[in-house]
Amino acid sequence: MTTRPPLPPIAITMGDPAGIGPELIAPLWQSLRQSGPGFIWLGDPRLLPANVPHEIVASPDAALSCFASRLPVMPVRLQESAEAGRPDPRHAPAIIASIERATHLTREGKVAAIVTSPISKHVLKDAGFNFPGHTEYLAHLCDEPGAEVMMLVSPHLRVVPVTIHVSLRDAIAQLNTPLIVKIGTTLITSLQRDFNIRTPRIAVAGLNPHAGEAGYMGDEEARIIAPAITALRHLNAEISDPLPPDTMFTPQMRETYDAALCMYHDQALIPLKTLDMTHGVNVTLGLPIVRTSPDHGTAFDIAGRGMANESSMLEAVRLAHKLAAHRRRA
Amino acid sequence: MTTRPPLPPIAITMGDPAGIGPELIAPLWQSLRQSGPGFIWLGDPRLLPANVPHEIVASPDAALSCFASRLPVMPVRLQESAEAGRPDPRHAPAIIASIERATHLTREGKVAAIVTSPISKHVLKDAGFNFPGHTEYLAHLCDEPGAEVMMLVSPHLRVVPVTIHVSLRDAIAQLNTPLIVKIGTTLITSLQRDFNIRTPRIAVAGLNPHAGEAGYMGDEEARIIAPAITALRHLNAEISDPLPPDTMFTPQMRETYDAALCMYHDQALIPLKTLDMTHGVNVTLGLPIVRTSPDHGTAFDIAGRGMANESSMLEAVRLAHKLAAHRRRA
Repeated sequence: MTTRPPLPPIAITMGDPAGIGPELIAPLWQSLRQSGPGFIWLGDPRLLPANVPHEIVASPDAALSCFASRLPVMPVRLQESAEAGRPDPRHAPAIIASIERATHLTREGKVAAIVTSPISKHVLKDAGFNFPGHTEYLAHLCDEPGAEVMMLVSPHLRVVPVTIHVSLRDAIAQLNTPLIVKIGTTLITSLQRDFNIRTPRIAVAGLNPHAGEAGYMGDEEARIIAPAITALRHLNAEISDPLPPDTMFTPQMRETYDAALCMYHDQALIPLKTLDMTHGVNVTLGLPIVRTSPDHGTAFDIAGRGMANESSMLEAVRLAHKLAAHRRRA
Repeated sequence: MTTRPPLPPIAITMGDPAGIGPELIAPLWQSLRQSGPGFIWLGDPRLLPANVPHEIVASPDAALSCFASRLPVMPVRLQESAEAGRPDPRHAPAIIASIERATHLTREGKVAAIVTSPISKHVLKDAGFNFPGHTEYLAHLCDEPGAEVMMLVSPHLRVVPVTIHVSLRDAIAQLNTPLIVKIGTTLITSLQRDFNIRTPRIAVAGLNPHAGEAGYMGDEEARIIAPAITALRHLNAEISDPLPPDTMFTPQMRETYDAALCMYHDQALIPLKTLDMTHGVNVTLGLPIVRTSPDHGTAFDIAGRGMANESSMLEAVRLAHKLAAHRRRA
């Protein structure tokens, strides 16, 4: 039996300095400093509360040794000082630099995984950032544009929507068999490699009420979804038939699968958030790096008021560590 | 202060004799015989277990006096004996007769409300029954076709879908401002009259992810839903803006409204059934009679095996009684 070195720390990006991201870092460190997993924060140290001891480190190697006593920071300086609740496009270069640096450290193996703090598309768009969001940008930085797949994880449920941030009308229009096969394949591979589930059980949602009730209420189940299921059944996984969406998230049903493959955003997100609003974690599957993020946004409206809850960040760091450990073993 | 006579009993229809409907009647009576509310069953007495005492009554008046000791039955005879799990179109005339008789008794005020046991559209369709389901048939019997509105009620949530048993594609196509206003008006009127909520608080769902995010992911919120909300705000009710569908069913949000007005079947039914699969009750709003039904079907696959759960029927009877009492007082 060989002893492996411990995993390197997790990299946490700064996110938007005017959002709730920075104020979650100190409570997050307090929660994890004894138990781990250790992390390193890539942000502007001026954003941290004065009473929290931090240590400027030059590389992630130094982070774990000081983690129990001081919050390790690799500085990413803001050009302008930030005010909570007041987003400012002049912060865009530092926000982006934090993401780039964390991604490169992850690709180099110097950190185990990346946890991204919330950003605002609008702030970055004004500065010329041409990606719909974090996830697509990370795929670009990893030279795998289009490989990214969004999973949401809560203590009750794992869901992957096949279509995401488009209107419901466009979601139906975009749905096709190769897309479902592609997303489903990434899901299965990731459950095996990152979640350590040898033969994943996948619940596939229908699109229509009652999964179309044998064509009586829509034919996408037979025309689009069933052929994708046939293809996915060639992989080492157990794949359901298209399930009636309203009954597939009951406690009894959730016992029968490891992840639900959903056809549109709210079909996946309604059950997840209805069951648990606080502990949801966003996981990006399909990339060469492990990346998680909290299931909330910048929340500019409550930033700086001490109202933000670090539970989702905490789960994001724990899950990133777990996935990175599984991936190393796989 | 005047003393009103007690409400008359609830009428429970036979439903499909090959489904789980009949086997729920005896446990239902056992649960309610002491506490009430009293009911009368309109079915074939041969379907009841031999060890359950029942009394054949000629009119509902006689039901309440015997209810504590014997299950009151107004017989509706089957032409053929029924076998659990084997639906038979020859039962259709009796299934329909039970519904008609219960509806007429309710309209005459001889029973307080009607609780329908599950039927199978397929069994009735073969016998020439030309309605999509129970609800439309009841509206027809009440001479108010099209007035019916479906509400689902659980201990956690009340939801009304604006579009129901159509494909998701058709649901989007059918959505229009007058339809939302019509359904919303029926919902508000019924919450006031039947649920005794003077100024109902209505959460209106958006159609698209994030309620369209200001037009970025769909324009139905601005084009169709917002004008309906403006119209509904003339009624005595508090109406939300179009809400992001994924976050409107959290415990915190559910505290803020009395009912959710949803745009399509699964938007309403996913959160309801995810939160509680067992106690859901279907309520038909907009008719001159009070009607509820359990939130399950005939379940031919488990009929006759003693596996069926009467919880939803029990809630349906209790809710029907409560709504009828409120309506009488309104």
